[in-house]
Amino acid sequence: MSSSDIFLGETIGTAVLILLGGGVCAAVTLKSSKARNAGWLAITFGWGFAVMTAVYMTASLSGAHLNPAVTVGIAIKDGDWGNVPVYVAGQMLGAMIGAALVWVTYYGQFQAHLRDPETVGEKPIEGPGPVLGIFSTGPEIRNTWQNLVTEIIGTVVLVLAVLTQGLNDSGKGLGVIGALITAFVVVSIGLSLGGPTGYAINPARDLGPRIVHALLPLPNKGGSDWSYAWIPVAGPLIGGAIAAGIYNIAFA
Amino acid sequence: MSSSDIFLGETIGTAVLILLGGGVCAAVTLKSSKARNAGWLAITFGWGFAVMTAVYMTASLSGAHLNPAVTVGIAIKDGDWGNVPVYVAGQMLGAMIGAALVWVTYYGQFQAHLRDPETVGEKPIEGPGPVLGIFSTGPEIRNTWQNLVTEIIGTVVLVLAVLTQGLNDSGKGLGVIGALITAFVVVSIGLSLGGPTGYAINPARDLGPRIVHALLPLPNKGGSDWSYAWIPVAGPLIGGAIAAGIYNIAFA
Amino acid sequence: MSSSDIFLGETIGTAVLILLGGGVCAAVTLKSSKARNAGWLAITFGWGFAVMTAVYMTASLSGAHLNPAVTVGIAIKDGDWGNVPVYVAGQMLGAMIGAALVWVTYYGQFQAHLRDPETVGEKPIEGPGPVLGIFSTGPEIRNTWQNLVTEIIGTVVLVLAVLTQGLNDSGKGLGVIGALITAFVVVSIGLSLGGPTGYAINPARDLGPRIVHALLPLPNKGGSDWSYAWIPVAGPLIGGAIAAGIYNIAFA
Amino acid sequence: MSSSDIFLGETIGTAVLILLGGGVCAAVTLKSSKARNAGWLAITFGWGFAVMTAVYMTASLSGAHLNPAVTVGIAIKDGDWGNVPVYVAGQMLGAMIGAALVWVTYYGQFQAHLRDPETVGEKPIEGPGPVLGIFSTGPEIRNTWQNLVTEIIGTVVLVLAVLTQGLNDSGKGLGVIGALITAFVVVSIGLSLGGPTGYAINPARDLGPRIVHALLPLPNKGGSDWSYAWIPVAGPLIGGAIAAGIYNIAFA
Repeated sequence: MSSSDIFLGETIGTAVLILLGGGVCAAVTLKSSKARNAGWLAITFGWGFAVMTAVYMTASLSGAHLNPAVTVGIAIKDGDWGNVPVYVAGQMLGAMIGAALVWVTYYGQFQAHLRDPETVGEKPIEGPGPVLGIFSTGPEIRNTWQNLVTEIIGTVVLVLAVLTQGLNDSGKGLGVIGALITAFVVVSIGLSLGGPTGYAINPARDLGPRIVHALLPLPNKGGSDWSYAWIPVAGPLIGGAIAAGIYNIAFA
Repeated sequence: MSSSDIFLGETIGTAVLILLGGGVCAAVTLKSSKARNAGWLAITFGWGFAVMTAVYMTASLSGAHLNPAVTVGIAIKDGDWGNVPVYVAGQMLGAMIGAALVWVTYYGQFQAHLRDPETVGEKPIEGPGPVLGIFSTGPEIRNTWQNLVTEIIGTVVLVLAVLTQGLNDSGKGLGVIGALITAFVVVSIGLSLGGPTGYAINPARDLGPRIVHALLPLPNKGGSDWSYAWIPVAGPLIGGAIAAGIYNIAFA
Repeated sequence: MSSSDIFLGETIGTAVLILLGGGVCAAVTLKSSKARNAGWLAITFGWGFAVMTAVYMTASLSGAHLNPAVTVGIAIKDGDWGNVPVYVAGQMLGAMIGAALVWVTYYGQFQAHLRDPETVGEKPIEGPGPVLGIFSTGPEIRNTWQNLVTEIIGTVVLVLAVLTQGLNDSGKGLGVIGALITAFVVVSIGLSLGGPTGYAINPARDLGPRIVHALLPLPNKGGSDWSYAWIPVAGPLIGGAIAAGIYNIAFA
Repeated sequence: MSSSDIFLGETIGTAVLILLGGGVCAAVTLKSSKARNAGWLAITFGWGFAVMTAVYMTASLSGAHLNPAVTVGIAIKDGDWGNVPVYVAGQMLGAMIGAALVWVTYYGQFQAHLRDPETVGEKPIEGPGPVLGIFSTGPEIRNTWQNLVTEIIGTVVLVLAVLTQGLNDSGKGLGVIGALITAFVVVSIGLSLGGPTGYAINPARDLGPRIVHALLPLPNKGGSDWSYAWIPVAGPLIGGAIAAGIYNIAFA
């Protein structure tokens, strides 16, 4: 894979991932959305199919990591860090594009929600600003070590599932079925481990949209909760590294 | 593929698509349906599996486009517009047959719903007439440019997912697994991007049933919202063309 | 396939189908069940995965028809009626065994539900007797021609999907993926076409458990609604025949 | 497969299974979880995808039994009991590790839930202690023979589905698609047969976490319901043996 294909694939793929993943949070949260209050199952399947769609689209270009924790895990497993900066750059750019597209798609809903006295102060699904939860994750109970450990555990499951795919797929990597399995692994992590922190399990998924939240001209948007922002970056990176360690010890 | 197989496949496939897709809207909307108020997740999975069933059935006949936006995207990608009129004619005919079959299947429910003073004025899931939402889409917030952009974005995701299938499928096209993946892409678009306009993402899916709504002898049916009707036609066609452009630049 | 393998496969497969399918109706309906009121989505996925499990288990023995409408459709398509009686005998026996196993599994729940003054007169999910809906289907609005047509349309979709599988599967029949696709076709029919009559779409699925309902010593069980019983038998058989006709004209 | 690979695979796999399966029960049960009250469908899909993730990860190491009832069923089918102790030891250790990881992941939620006068006495989803249902199963109606029979029937379905996989998979065993099918079989058992007892269908899944519940320093945790503990051990083992018997008579 050439560097330009990697960058292109990760940018497009992560943009689609965040458009669809942030989109389901907007759909379920915002006033005047047909999907309002569709519930946790809708959110978790929405994120799972977001991963499937994005992986499926871009697997042929870049291998579809779409997540710095996956990139780090694969780099440790393979002992090859050469393409890591290109992957992460594409992922961050894509995540920011995706978050901006969510805003465009739900423009009228954002305006209606944030200007209505009844909904403006409403607690978002995730995080403290009125609609920050559409962009980034936040904990239900703020506890640094627990929040960090929860993100680590969720990411270990994700990255270990990605790393062990090759063992079943006869080395074909993230193909058609792999995209589907990965989707349901993400639904599983959401349903089972998402309760405390909203399962970022991906530094780009959380940090990119948080930057966009800070930049967008949203009325009454509240803060971007920067004091929490390091946890969904550090936790997943640590989790990806631990998963690679487990892989190298137990599976290689 | 012969023209007659294409026409037959697209007619049968789009009829099944709209029978099942319109059917889930009827099931969730109408009085005296066992599925009444089954929620947004039921609607999005209902449409997704409608796509899967229809694609799976007719892939061997016509390739199962079932959507003029897909047909346009493939025509731009391949630079071959020869069969486009046959595809679109089958899709429009099939969509109208499917919408009529929904009416037959839910005949008693339509009568009960539209003659009951308690439900006759009820806001449909989509659109302004009492049961127009069972046939065609409508926006929650009426805003021409946003509604158009939302339909464009949703369709770009759909058509790009269809166009990139060949890259993973070793050229086998929309086969068994392809039908399943496409189904979940449609569920994903519904969950994540369907909130503002009800995700037509298919001109035939919206225009064909709207014509049938205008023609059917439904009591108290209200208007067919013709002023909105061009958006779910133009948006998806533009989206399909943009997806083909992205494909030709980034993936070809 | 030998006659004894066909009989065994259809008996085991239909028993598993009805155990799981009737089971989800019991789970959602009965007092003191953890799944009580889990909703229409639970019922439709429950029946879909019931089909998947049963087809997957018994495909190697009998081809896993598990439904006289499928058997009739295949017989018409192939012009071979030799094994039809063996198939249908196994399906009827299996359906009765499955319904009896539902009663055993939910024995305490049946007792609690049918002896509690608060739930004894409760309308079942389907049908008129207090718990008849756990065994057999019933219409929301009683209208002979519409109920019959609804069952015909649903079965046409099912049997046409089964018959066209060979076109995508390179003749491998109902294998691993086929079982999954068929499951989601059944979920689709449930979500989209199940609202008026509860989608029997299978004569054995409806008649076998209705006989068991009539025989079981359930307290306050009410009638078995025999006046309706012919519709979920005749409708699916007609639907299976129509599907075979469409197949022979359009797909063969 | 070497004994150390089997032990490692079963330990990791069962730990992931219980982390995700117990996790969804914690997510849906505990105060201050984003998934609180997400419902029975969330629980059943959560357990299903837990099985998929764990099987998919560890199939190459140990064949991914992750359940003594599966191990016993395969031993009877193959007439080879040599590795049974290694399998079961790994499963029990893994189940205990997984249950401990649920506690770590939801540490703050456990504290908040068990110290809040409003929730401390709340009936858990399964079992009598305030949060025992997150660890182990319990019946809605306590009736020894029915509870035992329900666990037997559920496990027969599970183990028969596992044993018949080879017949469709051309002997490839629990591979990529097998993991997905098994996941949906487990969802099916949950939706359809889980109402009375909470479907342990796996002795290690129930006993391992029950021991951890007894050991953990949870405030106000209540009893571990040891009088019921033998049923979700004996029932699944009997069910696994019956499934192997059915397999040997009908399918071999």
